[in-house]
Amino acid sequence: MSQNSDINSTGKIAYLGPEGTYSQLAALEFFGSDAQLLNCASIDDVFAAVEKKEVAYGVVPVENSTEGAINNTQDCLIDSSASIVGEQIVSIEHSLLVLENTSKSDIKKIASHKQSLAQCRNYLAKNFPEAEQVECPSNAEAAIRAQSDSGTAAIASELAGRLYNLQSLDQRIQDKSNNRTRFLVLALEDTAPTGSDKTSILVYTENKPGALFRVLEPFENFQLSLTKIETRPSKKEAWEYVFFIDFEGHALDEASKKLFATLVQAGVEVKMLGSYPLSK
Amino acid sequence: MSQNSDINSTGKIAYLGPEGTYSQLAALEFFGSDAQLLNCASIDDVFAAVEKKEVAYGVVPVENSTEGAINNTQDCLIDSSASIVGEQIVSIEHSLLVLENTSKSDIKKIASHKQSLAQCRNYLAKNFPEAEQVECPSNAEAAIRAQSDSGTAAIASELAGRLYNLQSLDQRIQDKSNNRTRFLVLALEDTAPTGSDKTSILVYTENKPGALFRVLEPFENFQLSLTKIETRPSKKEAWEYVFFIDFEGHALDEASKKLFATLVQAGVEVKMLGSYPLSK
Repeated sequence: MSQNSDINSTGKIAYLGPEGTYSQLAALEFFGSDAQLLNCASIDDVFAAVEKKEVAYGVVPVENSTEGAINNTQDCLIDSSASIVGEQIVSIEHSLLVLENTSKSDIKKIASHKQSLAQCRNYLAKNFPEAEQVECPSNAEAAIRAQSDSGTAAIASELAGRLYNLQSLDQRIQDKSNNRTRFLVLALEDTAPTGSDKTSILVYTENKPGALFRVLEPFENFQLSLTKIETRPSKKEAWEYVFFIDFEGHALDEASKKLFATLVQAGVEVKMLGSYPLSK
Repeated sequence: MSQNSDINSTGKIAYLGPEGTYSQLAALEFFGSDAQLLNCASIDDVFAAVEKKEVAYGVVPVENSTEGAINNTQDCLIDSSASIVGEQIVSIEHSLLVLENTSKSDIKKIASHKQSLAQCRNYLAKNFPEAEQVECPSNAEAAIRAQSDSGTAAIASELAGRLYNLQSLDQRIQDKSNNRTRFLVLALEDTAPTGSDKTSILVYTENKPGALFRVLEPFENFQLSLTKIETRPSKKEAWEYVFFIDFEGHALDEASKKLFATLVQAGVEVKMLGSYPLSK
């Protein structure tokens, strides 16, 4: 069990699989190495496993520091009954993984997720200018591919290397050293205030001039620090949007209660996504 | 030449190819059917062709009414010297395209862009529950694939069907009827006010509480109607963001000038992306 001792991890934890993904790494970092994990084929499946109580928690990526929001996770949050109960930031460190007894000169193909290939662009141009790049649905699936072909190297985590018995020829091959992904921990419960919390809400505004301003004004009036705002299509009408807003504080704080009352009074539709401790 | 007679279309127009994409359709709708078009392999290449003056204009997708922002286009706008000089909204209407003399019972595979397969989920579940779905980099490339295999049907536009000599077995097969994509027209020039314009800017704020509120306040004060706000990673520091803001009016309007002066005075970094007539 790791630092998140307020989270009950006796139940199973669903994550975006297959085995060896960075989502698995996030789940292990959050819940500790003895956590009972269940891999799911898609982000939608992780949400469904939580909603149907097949697992106690779910772990999904929500944002990369270079590539931005993971839209699929945001769209699931719009409809889901699951709450956000935690977050985990993971450093994305890629290794070059091959079958045992393979040398760099044997490598004809480099397999990985499209984003990971892009994140290692300089390394690949310098070291493997001739190799064919093969896009896979996940880093873990690239590792599975490398397992069956000594001419294919995978770009994936050291965890994936250990899981699929691959050797790591080079480590930390990503071009930017501060490449991180933020994961959300989902559950059908709420968390108590810890004194250092963040709250995520969804806001539907009218499609009228100044509507967003009127949403943000009460944050300023109640001195709530808005840390993030993201826009997504509402899915109801073309060109209508919902806003994902993060602010510092817990939903049970007095200032938050005043905020919600003011927004509701102004006719703004708010969906609570969850309050949870800030990632360390 | 179409309705956009203020745009000089004597030069070439680059679009996101290959031939038969919805970007080509957008270029034809904006510039008219006799426009001289050049297809590019990527969104980055369209921007580069405009910046190097290889073409007079570029056409790239920026937003889908269901799927949201096209991040690649937003990221190019952050760095590019090209301006937005127009927008074109295209209804995304998919057809099921096959080789001549092919019937529905011959179809074993359905090829298309991942988003298009998702947009036709109900149609495919009802009509082709057994067919294998093949993801392609674009709808046009799916049409090329259908050209060489009578067992493969492509989901793409009627335009793609005509270009690649495919017959259209079913039309308007997308699940949502109001599925539209907004395209931007890029050039190394500015446009004069028409009386019905929109302005797009990029704003870098400090990573401080209330920073976004202080950006939005002057819009309210000068009665400028903010129609859209999008967030993207700044690419400078992890978890720092830039905001894409659209508002009604032209950059040369008095209210806009006051807005820019106020933002600059408040230490907000603003990049002008362009003023252009609202799409009809």
